[in-house]
Amino acid sequence: MKKILIIVPDGGMLFEAAGIADILMQANRLHPGGLAQPCYRIIIATTQPHQVIHGQSGLNLLADYRLPELIPVSRLIPSSLPGAA
Amino acid sequence: MKKILIIVPDGGMLFEAAGIADILMQANRLHPGGLAQPCYRIIIATTQPHQVIHGQSGLNLLADYRLPELIPVSRLIPSSLPGAA
Repeated sequence: MKKILIIVPDGGMLFEAAGIADILMQANRLHPGGLAQPCYRIIIATTQPHQVIHGQSGLNLLADYRLPELIPVSRLIPSSLPGAA
Repeated sequence: MKKILIIVPDGGMLFEAAGIADILMQANRLHPGGLAQPCYRIIIATTQPHQVIHGQSGLNLLADYRLPELIPVSRLIPSSLPGAA
């Protein structure tokens, strides 16, 4: 199974993330044996400190994770930079 | 302002609701004076007792309202039916 991470920014258009997720879900459905063992799993992450992603249209998507939960901040700071731990 | 109610069933494809909402948001944006006074406002309702709509793809949309909050059950039962209040 491939895990696909979609990072959805606040204030964006949600049909992009929803469309990609629905296409991959259809790929799961059409693949032989895809229903028993899906080929793709979608994970939605938000860049915000809260878990609700506010779309530009007023729709609200619920993220699976906040981005810092998936990528520890320490990994984003190269250790050669001044001040990095 | 026109209020557009989209009733999103659980287990469906969320890009349909997200797509309609994004199109109407673009209509607001392109309409003269649409930014000051939007022409359309999208309201998302769920048929479920909880406010989270689980899409078929695994994405979760947050509904603005649960349908019974908008349409009282008493209005759905014609008074001529036996047992109706």
